[in-house]
Amino acid sequence: MGVRIGQMETGRLNAITDVEGVGVGHTTLIHGDPPLKIGEGPIRTGVTAIVPHQGNVYLDKVVAAVDLSNAHGKATGFPQIECMGVIETPIMLTDTLNTWLVADAVLDYFRERYDTTPRSLNPVVGETNGDFLNDSFGRHVRKKHVFEAVDKARSADGRGPVEEGNVGGGTPMTGYGFKGGIGTSSRVCGNFTVGALVQLNCGRREDLRIDGAPVGREVKMPPQEGREPGNSIMMIVATDLALTSRQLWKVAKRAVLGLARTGSYQGVSSGDFVIAFSTGKVSPDNPIEKDYTGNIALGGGERFLDGVFRATADSTEEAIINALFKAETMVGSHGTRYALPLDQVEEIMKKYKRL
Amino acid sequence: MGVRIGQMETGRLNAITDVEGVGVGHTTLIHGDPPLKIGEGPIRTGVTAIVPHQGNVYLDKVVAAVDLSNAHGKATGFPQIECMGVIETPIMLTDTLNTWLVADAVLDYFRERYDTTPRSLNPVVGETNGDFLNDSFGRHVRKKHVFEAVDKARSADGRGPVEEGNVGGGTPMTGYGFKGGIGTSSRVCGNFTVGALVQLNCGRREDLRIDGAPVGREVKMPPQEGREPGNSIMMIVATDLALTSRQLWKVAKRAVLGLARTGSYQGVSSGDFVIAFSTGKVSPDNPIEKDYTGNIALGGGERFLDGVFRATADSTEEAIINALFKAETMVGSHGTRYALPLDQVEEIMKKYKRL
Amino acid sequence: MGVRIGQMETGRLNAITDVEGVGVGHTTLIHGDPPLKIGEGPIRTGVTAIVPHQGNVYLDKVVAAVDLSNAHGKATGFPQIECMGVIETPIMLTDTLNTWLVADAVLDYFRERYDTTPRSLNPVVGETNGDFLNDSFGRHVRKKHVFEAVDKARSADGRGPVEEGNVGGGTPMTGYGFKGGIGTSSRVCGNFTVGALVQLNCGRREDLRIDGAPVGREVKMPPQEGREPGNSIMMIVATDLALTSRQLWKVAKRAVLGLARTGSYQGVSSGDFVIAFSTGKVSPDNPIEKDYTGNIALGGGERFLDGVFRATADSTEEAIINALFKAETMVGSHGTRYALPLDQVEEIMKKYKRL
Amino acid sequence: MGVRIGQMETGRLNAITDVEGVGVGHTTLIHGDPPLKIGEGPIRTGVTAIVPHQGNVYLDKVVAAVDLSNAHGKATGFPQIECMGVIETPIMLTDTLNTWLVADAVLDYFRERYDTTPRSLNPVVGETNGDFLNDSFGRHVRKKHVFEAVDKARSADGRGPVEEGNVGGGTPMTGYGFKGGIGTSSRVCGNFTVGALVQLNCGRREDLRIDGAPVGREVKMPPQEGREPGNSIMMIVATDLALTSRQLWKVAKRAVLGLARTGSYQGVSSGDFVIAFSTGKVSPDNPIEKDYTGNIALGGGERFLDGVFRATADSTEEAIINALFKAETMVGSHGTRYALPLDQVEEIMKKYKRL
Repeated sequence: MGVRIGQMETGRLNAITDVEGVGVGHTTLIHGDPPLKIGEGPIRTGVTAIVPHQGNVYLDKVVAAVDLSNAHGKATGFPQIECMGVIETPIMLTDTLNTWLVADAVLDYFRERYDTTPRSLNPVVGETNGDFLNDSFGRHVRKKHVFEAVDKARSADGRGPVEEGNVGGGTPMTGYGFKGGIGTSSRVCGNFTVGALVQLNCGRREDLRIDGAPVGREVKMPPQEGREPGNSIMMIVATDLALTSRQLWKVAKRAVLGLARTGSYQGVSSGDFVIAFSTGKVSPDNPIEKDYTGNIALGGGERFLDGVFRATADSTEEAIINALFKAETMVGSHGTRYALPLDQVEEIMKKYKRL
Repeated sequence: MGVRIGQMETGRLNAITDVEGVGVGHTTLIHGDPPLKIGEGPIRTGVTAIVPHQGNVYLDKVVAAVDLSNAHGKATGFPQIECMGVIETPIMLTDTLNTWLVADAVLDYFRERYDTTPRSLNPVVGETNGDFLNDSFGRHVRKKHVFEAVDKARSADGRGPVEEGNVGGGTPMTGYGFKGGIGTSSRVCGNFTVGALVQLNCGRREDLRIDGAPVGREVKMPPQEGREPGNSIMMIVATDLALTSRQLWKVAKRAVLGLARTGSYQGVSSGDFVIAFSTGKVSPDNPIEKDYTGNIALGGGERFLDGVFRATADSTEEAIINALFKAETMVGSHGTRYALPLDQVEEIMKKYKRL
Repeated sequence: MGVRIGQMETGRLNAITDVEGVGVGHTTLIHGDPPLKIGEGPIRTGVTAIVPHQGNVYLDKVVAAVDLSNAHGKATGFPQIECMGVIETPIMLTDTLNTWLVADAVLDYFRERYDTTPRSLNPVVGETNGDFLNDSFGRHVRKKHVFEAVDKARSADGRGPVEEGNVGGGTPMTGYGFKGGIGTSSRVCGNFTVGALVQLNCGRREDLRIDGAPVGREVKMPPQEGREPGNSIMMIVATDLALTSRQLWKVAKRAVLGLARTGSYQGVSSGDFVIAFSTGKVSPDNPIEKDYTGNIALGGGERFLDGVFRATADSTEEAIINALFKAETMVGSHGTRYALPLDQVEEIMKKYKRL
Repeated sequence: MGVRIGQMETGRLNAITDVEGVGVGHTTLIHGDPPLKIGEGPIRTGVTAIVPHQGNVYLDKVVAAVDLSNAHGKATGFPQIECMGVIETPIMLTDTLNTWLVADAVLDYFRERYDTTPRSLNPVVGETNGDFLNDSFGRHVRKKHVFEAVDKARSADGRGPVEEGNVGGGTPMTGYGFKGGIGTSSRVCGNFTVGALVQLNCGRREDLRIDGAPVGREVKMPPQEGREPGNSIMMIVATDLALTSRQLWKVAKRAVLGLARTGSYQGVSSGDFVIAFSTGKVSPDNPIEKDYTGNIALGGGERFLDGVFRATADSTEEAIINALFKAETMVGSHGTRYALPLDQVEEIMKKYKRL
């Protein structure tokens, strides 16, 4: 549509896969129709895998950090990341109640695909709650779906353009009262790249802002059905700039700034988690043009982080918008979740001079 | 001007003093002209006192929490608030290098004004760096100025309308490249009130957003002088709703959402601190209209917090804008800091349909 | 043996079940012999359930807090406890690689046993690594074992004396180079009770202290086999004193003091987690005799916590010792783990005048 | 006396100054007699400076981390250390109510002694409350005393043996009901050194343990006077091993293990803070003998930290004991604080076979 968030340039794919080595794979499961019958369907779920590089992450761990912004969620693996400052598995995204079966399957993946039998392993699984459309309690994501997602993430396709919207872990999700799901974006900044990927399931319709325009309040839509729309968001930030876990912890916190700009108040029931990791492909020496730094005169040694912060907030903000732009109307267990009406959005954006 | 942030109503004064019992007092020191002579001037500084109630706070402590959002700052008293969940002194705001003398003077205040000689005391002093305009190293705020500010905060005037802009601790500060300083705002929400007060000294000009409109990029201004504009922001949130320190910790985090909406990326050198406190005048039983809650169906017992979160983000966002609207152009030690040109802002807001 | 840790009295059972309503159930699985064949055995594992009360914890949550002392571990559910200040499921303890299957089974338990189908659930599962004796990768704990443990915890037997040593989640564990496992203890303190239960799998032999005596350095034992002994400890603290989550957070940190007194240095690979919860049966008004408080003159309102802290550290210290005293020599996948030789310990304790 | 804590070797001086470049300076102020007259005396106070190296720390910052173990205290500078991972001033220790005047004087020190005028500075001042013996409210530590302490720390003498007991910031302090103050110790470990220095003002008499022996319960002393003995402890850990701030954060937490072993329950009113810093003189490649590591088989890359952890806990434990051994009986504002009776201690240690 031409919406442009911030002043930095996007990467070639405008996706987290612009960070070299990062791969994304989705397994999407859509079967059956309402009414809900627990254990049978309707099935509107899936799993998304993000690999930080193409090797065995357990053997070649990557530096990472987390922000538990509003930790009303079940994501696994976060305490150990805080303690050790690394991730050692692909990052998996799925529907809440699949979380533990997905974590368990990641263990098998290492044995069956890498021929590594870890004595211990810290699977990182993020989740949001898709039960408005999905038979969540049925937990329809199986080991084979997990394997399929990681296999795809490790393929050449996995390092290319990233499917967005109703795919993978994002399949049944809701964003700002509209159909949500997976979104991604990236920014190139001097000699490094920052990419974000979100699984969007949070926000209230009236709060939605796109590049500052009050889209949520202006869109005309059928009255919302009784059941509360989604909650929670998982935000993944990747960079090829070599950073310490303390620096990445601060990067992770900037993803929440991007979320705020799209309108969220981070409701009490929202599980808003961020993981930031570095592939460490490029060094932080002279990484950034002066134009992107806000604070040249102050603070000394870490001022290159300002560019990373900006790239993180902007790419997260845009990833959220991209999830809404790409998701399509879906019927599921408790009703219909409508896609953001792009024709209306275009009008609104023009009215508010954002296009 | 008519800018309206969010959908909730403001309090009578649109100030933190709408929270009953809260008082604000400023001591403003403006003397001398450039050039800078350390210890002599120019003096562009002051101190602001916020009292949570009209009694002796050391004896009647109030529940509180903090968020160390980007803790590149010297604020005192925060670790003990985290540990004990209370504040026991007025909250003081000043220029960075005055921090410790102000804290020390608060101790004297208790002895001299309350006839209380604490064995130990945890003065809470927030700061931002005003040295673009002020002889900061000269530390011109003295004990008498501290006393004057607290005395005012405890007077009837202190509980009325709050002066904003170039006053108190905010006197020399910068916001988004324009003249910044003190700003305040409030929201009324069902049976309770939330008020915010900020000492604004952060942000880069191009990033400024007012109610989503890209004001910073549109304003035409003389080229900025060599020295880096300000950094850091102190955000104080008060409510009369009885909350625990864990709940206030989450409230504090929502102030940062309001900051994000005005455009900040929280630069690496920015000291962005939040204190939230409760005077506990009203109970959280049935505190809030359904309209203000985003998440009725989920989450259970704490969903009333959603209204508090929204009121916090909105009043913080507006307090920042109010600081910019009220601050006036000032000449000081390293040059001139221009006020936000309100006539241009009005045009821009109209262009972007925000007025 | 007569070892007495600290100066407070133990409860009637000297167990976490002295806190009224708390129940404990173990499922212990011991089958097969070496050599290790992944997926077949030897099986030396199990699961322990701790219920904070006899009702449906999802519907009647209890106030809780955690300390992530050295979070090199996979425990689930901790971030949400930090955010919301409650637990809503039984606390489960098991071998590391069972973690996620156990968490998933807890979900089924609510549907099948309580007829509650949660939209979302935050299972709390703690783990330590038992693979020196157990076929850990085989993940031999199944849903039925989880159900059995929770069922027992909810029975009258579950509220009685607690089996210790090679039982439940503690079955294959190691403590200070000796056979470890489950241990428990309690303290009665004025009008309230504190109980601790640990799953002990950490420590180096030479470091073991019992009531200050250097038992680990004095015990004569066969030379240790090649494989590194265990790591990690899960510590659960319960009290019937009504506390806030902030207060329980501080209680949780005192469990680590008890651990320190038994000799641990909290190795970098150790997953040392604490959960503290309150059943809120008694109020903190006048809860404690003057004798137990260290700090009468200072600090004001929370000084009753001093007694809780002391009870927590002492009962955790003793729970660790009890695990060692009750565990028996076990042969498993990678060798033999010998029980602490109690006859030698008695001699050593006499030598050091601790008996 | 021959007490030996742990199994590692001490450095040449058994002091934090065994870490090359670290210097310590005390200014001790003892004047006047009871009764207390606020502003006049009796004066039993002082200030201790620890410099991490002999240069200008503001220009050459050192990597650092903190643990806010029980943050009921007024220490300044800790939030910025958490955020930035460095210290940029000497670490100062003093009596609580001097905290802010000392912080302010450190600012002057940079201008007057280093000819550096910082725009901003993060003075790190730790404190414990000495008002049992000292006219604390009188705040008798002045700028010249601060300068004197830092000057000494930067001299050749400052890098030699460290005075302990009633000196510097420790002058009026109490430990376990006996006279406390400053203590220090060190451990050499493979190719690196760890040193600890404490300002001891916490603990209850009956709880004191020396190398596990229950000294506090056995010592016979005159009945204690009415006023509550001290609270709080500041613990400083230095190493020449190059560590990240995340690693130093974990090191800082191990100081508390040493504290626990001397008997403290960390009372609710205790301000127990740790700062750990690295001078980075040696690299962590192969830093440590196998003998000192507890966890060879597990965990991978950071296992060298186990030796650092052990050295930290042991040297902190011994520093506390050394403070008690060196402090002498003192009369002050509210009574007499008796030194630990070393002749009795020797008997007790022999009885418990610790000598």
